[in-house]
Amino acid sequence: MRIIVCGMGVVGQSFLKLLLTSSSSLYKDYGIKPRVIACVDSKGIAFSPTGLDLEKVLATKEKYGSLESFDGPKLTSDNYIEDLDAEAFLELTPTNLSTAEPGLSHIISALRSKKNVITVNKGPLALSFSSLIELSDYNNVMLRFSGTVGGGTPVLDFAKHCLKGDKITSFTGILNGTTNYILTRMADGLPFNEALKDAKEKGYAEANPSLDIDGDDAAAKLVIMANWIMGYKVTLADVEKVGISNIDPNEFAKASEQGKSVKLIAKCDKSELFVKPLPISKDDPICVNGTLNAVTFRSEHSGEQTIIGKGAGGMETASSILRDLIEIKQNMTNYELN
Amino acid sequence: MRIIVCGMGVVGQSFLKLLLTSSSSLYKDYGIKPRVIACVDSKGIAFSPTGLDLEKVLATKEKYGSLESFDGPKLTSDNYIEDLDAEAFLELTPTNLSTAEPGLSHIISALRSKKNVITVNKGPLALSFSSLIELSDYNNVMLRFSGTVGGGTPVLDFAKHCLKGDKITSFTGILNGTTNYILTRMADGLPFNEALKDAKEKGYAEANPSLDIDGDDAAAKLVIMANWIMGYKVTLADVEKVGISNIDPNEFAKASEQGKSVKLIAKCDKSELFVKPLPISKDDPICVNGTLNAVTFRSEHSGEQTIIGKGAGGMETASSILRDLIEIKQNMTNYELN
Repeated sequence: MRIIVCGMGVVGQSFLKLLLTSSSSLYKDYGIKPRVIACVDSKGIAFSPTGLDLEKVLATKEKYGSLESFDGPKLTSDNYIEDLDAEAFLELTPTNLSTAEPGLSHIISALRSKKNVITVNKGPLALSFSSLIELSDYNNVMLRFSGTVGGGTPVLDFAKHCLKGDKITSFTGILNGTTNYILTRMADGLPFNEALKDAKEKGYAEANPSLDIDGDDAAAKLVIMANWIMGYKVTLADVEKVGISNIDPNEFAKASEQGKSVKLIAKCDKSELFVKPLPISKDDPICVNGTLNAVTFRSEHSGEQTIIGKGAGGMETASSILRDLIEIKQNMTNYELN
Repeated sequence: MRIIVCGMGVVGQSFLKLLLTSSSSLYKDYGIKPRVIACVDSKGIAFSPTGLDLEKVLATKEKYGSLESFDGPKLTSDNYIEDLDAEAFLELTPTNLSTAEPGLSHIISALRSKKNVITVNKGPLALSFSSLIELSDYNNVMLRFSGTVGGGTPVLDFAKHCLKGDKITSFTGILNGTTNYILTRMADGLPFNEALKDAKEKGYAEANPSLDIDGDDAAAKLVIMANWIMGYKVTLADVEKVGISNIDPNEFAKASEQGKSVKLIAKCDKSELFVKPLPISKDDPICVNGTLNAVTFRSEHSGEQTIIGKGAGGMETASSILRDLIEIKQNMTNYELN
């Protein structure tokens, strides 16, 4: 299986490391022989039509910070995404929730040239979910995005595969670890600015944390879940969204007196689609602390189920890409058999 | 798809009700036309080779408490399990952890006569897991048992299907809702006997609650998980087991001072297989209260994930039988195609 990896940040590098350690079990258990033919970062492309030496790619990235100086065959094409032959295109560039670029153009090019796509980039899905799914269907390839929600925690797979024959009617969750960490510290008595500083020092918050604290990251995940799990046709603009930077500090004490904690809650049901800070009972399974994420699904017959896990992490998210790759391989095999 | 339902308690009746409400979506979404040809309870058999009127079966059961007087064709065979033609046999008789009977004999007969089997009876699996799986493999049929662990909460499906490409290295859980309810009440200050009485009054504990409070029910689930998820070959006798009836009441206060709760914890890893009361941090996602169940899986790459849900309930458990039925149907279809 020929793979193009576009985006070589923490997740991209973790994915290459994961391939290095799991290639024998991938072949034994799933018949997958992964062959990464191109790795792309913002400055350069490492390319080999017969499959890259992944250790060399990782070493180059580590030593020079980019793939610009990677020693190997040069690509002559201007449009490598369409022109290269590959079965899977991995879109791992950073999320942009205003334009979704460059991820959106990458994904469209890959789908149009009949490549299966795996992405962990929330932008294209938060802004253009339905049309991307349509484009993948039209081209008879798969678009998979397990890592966009929950990192390594299989939130989307759980909802899609573990409740067959039942119907999910609503879900509620904590979908952003950074804000959950900040709110946990604020419940301990820290003011917002100090809690945010602490989160930055621990590496949980970015230098520009607005994507997290304004609720945009959680809203993007909510949109992906609402489309994929519930079949709704919604985009980021449909989400009622309130961030965490203006919570009255007294709310934390008031919540605590009632056995509750203030959490940034995302909710989706027939009439509501929102992300906002709300007091939640400490006895509620989704009331998790620190950087954890949690989602409770309600379904017609099997009741309520909650899934909890770390919502980020390079290797964890890489493991979700691997799951998507296995699903694509199994789909390709079925297609060949039938 | 012809189905035999053996065992007409709460779960069996809920399953018939679920079929009545979901038959059209089962056909539309999965191509399943369920036809229940026999329902069996301890006193009688309702039988129709062309498919029973499920409302009539339920009404008879409700009115007379048994199917003895069900008005319909009589079965002439002494050995209906082997002699009837059917694609799926549902073993829903009560769990017996000493002999596993009558469930064990039922399942063996069904597998031998090449029927796919779905069971929610923990006895046969807790005592003879490997040999039953071997027997199903030998006869080219499936043995499924989603409802044995977690009721409607898809604990087994999650572990098997949502972490592909990864390897679960250990898991820890609260696998019995009755004891979790009793321990929750004891943490509130109630003595064991009063908490047990309360659990009985609320219908959470049986008249003879020893299967729950001695830890046998949790141990049986642990054995099923250790075999199915981890590939271990263990039976009930391999579990180190301590119940909840002899916990020193001071343990609850001591745990609480340290931010912990005493829970009946089941654990499985390379060196340990136990069910025993242990203090658990209240910040741990598995530290759930009331009748909830919870399991945390640890895997090589995707970190820790916790799944939480009600561990029992007629309709919830019936929904897990439906999931198994869909998996069997999909497997039969693949088999025909290949």
